Amino acid sequence: MTLLHTIFLVAISAEAMSGAMMAMRRKMDLFGICLIGTVTGLGGGTVRDVMLGHYPLTWVGHPEYLAFTVGAALATAFVARVLHHFRLLFLLVDGLGLVAFTIIGCNVALEIGAPTTIVVLSGMITGVFGGLLRDVLCNEVPLVLQRDLYATVALVTGILYVGLLWLELGTTVASLIALTVGFALRVMAVIFHWRLPSFSAEGIRGFD
Amino acid sequence: MTLLHTIFLVAISAEAMSGAMMAMRRKMDLFGICLIGTVTGLGGGTVRDVMLGHYPLTWVGHPEYLAFTVGAALATAFVARVLHHFRLLFLLVDGLGLVAFTIIGCNVALEIGAPTTIVVLSGMITGVFGGLLRDVLCNEVPLVLQRDLYATVALVTGILYVGLLWLELGTTVASLIALTVGFALRVMAVIFHWRLPSFSAEGIRGFD
Amino acid sequence: MTLLHTIFLVAISAEAMSGAMMAMRRKMDLFGICLIGTVTGLGGGTVRDVMLGHYPLTWVGHPEYLAFTVGAALATAFVARVLHHFRLLFLLVDGLGLVAFTIIGCNVALEIGAPTTIVVLSGMITGVFGGLLRDVLCNEVPLVLQRDLYATVALVTGILYVGLLWLELGTTVASLIALTVGFALRVMAVIFHWRLPSFSAEGIRGFD
Repeated sequence: MTLLHTIFLVAISAEAMSGAMMAMRRKMDLFGICLIGTVTGLGGGTVRDVMLGHYPLTWVGHPEYLAFTVGAALATAFVARVLHHFRLLFLLVDGLGLVAFTIIGCNVALEIGAPTTIVVLSGMITGVFGGLLRDVLCNEVPLVLQRDLYATVALVTGILYVGLLWLELGTTVASLIALTVGFALRVMAVIFHWRLPSFSAEGIRGFD
Repeated sequence: MTLLHTIFLVAISAEAMSGAMMAMRRKMDLFGICLIGTVTGLGGGTVRDVMLGHYPLTWVGHPEYLAFTVGAALATAFVARVLHHFRLLFLLVDGLGLVAFTIIGCNVALEIGAPTTIVVLSGMITGVFGGLLRDVLCNEVPLVLQRDLYATVALVTGILYVGLLWLELGTTVASLIALTVGFALRVMAVIFHWRLPSFSAEGIRGFD
Repeated sequence: MTLLHTIFLVAISAEAMSGAMMAMRRKMDLFGICLIGTVTGLGGGTVRDVMLGHYPLTWVGHPEYLAFTVGAALATAFVARVLHHFRLLFLLVDGLGLVAFTIIGCNVALEIGAPTTIVVLSGMITGVFGGLLRDVLCNEVPLVLQRDLYATVALVTGILYVGLLWLELGTTVASLIALTVGFALRVMAVIFHWRLPSFSAEGIRGFD
């Protein structure tokens, strides 16, 4: 699918920029910026492929993708000063990427005949684990586990996509609907600060 | 082995509860609680399988296990307030799980004909890495590397189990003996605060 | 190659010592010291092999390597008090290890017919990810992403090695030249505090 692939390339670049920005705040050098950027952009698909035993990994089979993540990370390092003008664009591309990653991740699991639960999970892992690895490498409690509906968007997108395929709507139509709905959900989650509930941790001291 | 499998299901649930509790203390949302719970319950076996190239991963082949970890994590989120009444039970189940995970990990490596060192190591990885991944994702120095004999219990259990098999005692008898001895060791380590020695770090500044 | 293999054994031991020292500073117990030491010594090759789907992992096929890393970690725990006398030796062995790991990593990717970009990347991952995993497990922002040219030495060594092979100089000659140049570069980077540029992070708040 050309549309999905184009969104994929834009999304790994956008994710690489988010990784590069966090690396810069940790005062990492140019190598660290490129590494964190690449891990953020391609880490979700890498974790998915390792979990599914799906080799070669995306970037091993297509090393040209590394040019996108490294290029985006380097560009970020040099133009960071003006990036704050593009915050809204960045949030939109990040949301689009989350949804596209999820659909791609579902497709990979479908190809190898995984059960439905694993198909949806494969989508979530692809969408969420790039940002999660970025946060672990930057020594942060993962933001994706704390902020506005992010993983939940991946979950809804994955379930919707699998459901539409089950209704035999065809990959193209299912992708377009899942992309649209998932993206709309993410945008609304950001605008209205939708969150999953978190819970009081009182009464659970002394357990580890 | 039905007994070992039953203990396995109880243990992944108990480990998922320990992960959920740490996630709640980090103010993670419901998704984070489920993710950290699942990683804690199934992460040790996942690391082992990736290290050994043993596919499909446990939870990919048996997605129903995810219902145990996600269910236990959700339950924890809603009943955390009363959980402190069950601290002792929790410690016991956690210790039983550690020992059961270790024996299961040894069995996986034995099945693929790994050398003895790797069999014992496979047991340790299965027992210890779930908690270790939990701590890394929650941005903690891993507790398993600091507290009362925990990894050591896995090591002793693994060596004992392999030794008993070598004496041709049969899987069932060897499992029962290793379970009992390992569990007793863990309980005593908790009661008497047994620890491995740690060492002064003086004189080693400036090395990294 | 005997020389490269000898350097490999010395290097995994030296890296294990660096891991053990960081574990001691985190007040880890003897198990933690051995684990962090082993991850530091063998983690780079492990990440590389998992990324490339190259099984069995080095230490699964050669469990005797674990004796080197565990032995070096234990030794470190007992003689840490006098280690500061050997700081220079340690830095030299660490630099030699970085370069040797890189060449070995390139060779693994060459064996499985990976494209050139992946060959160089495989070398970098082998050289750098042991230290990176050590830092993640010890809850540090990875030093390799911040300090004097380290990853860059791996990059230069890898490109040089691949270039020399492309010129049909033969593995032995190419290894010797790459070892010498890479090691010299690393030593000079330490002596003269060469660094990659890092960048101001102003104007990039509010992006995650």
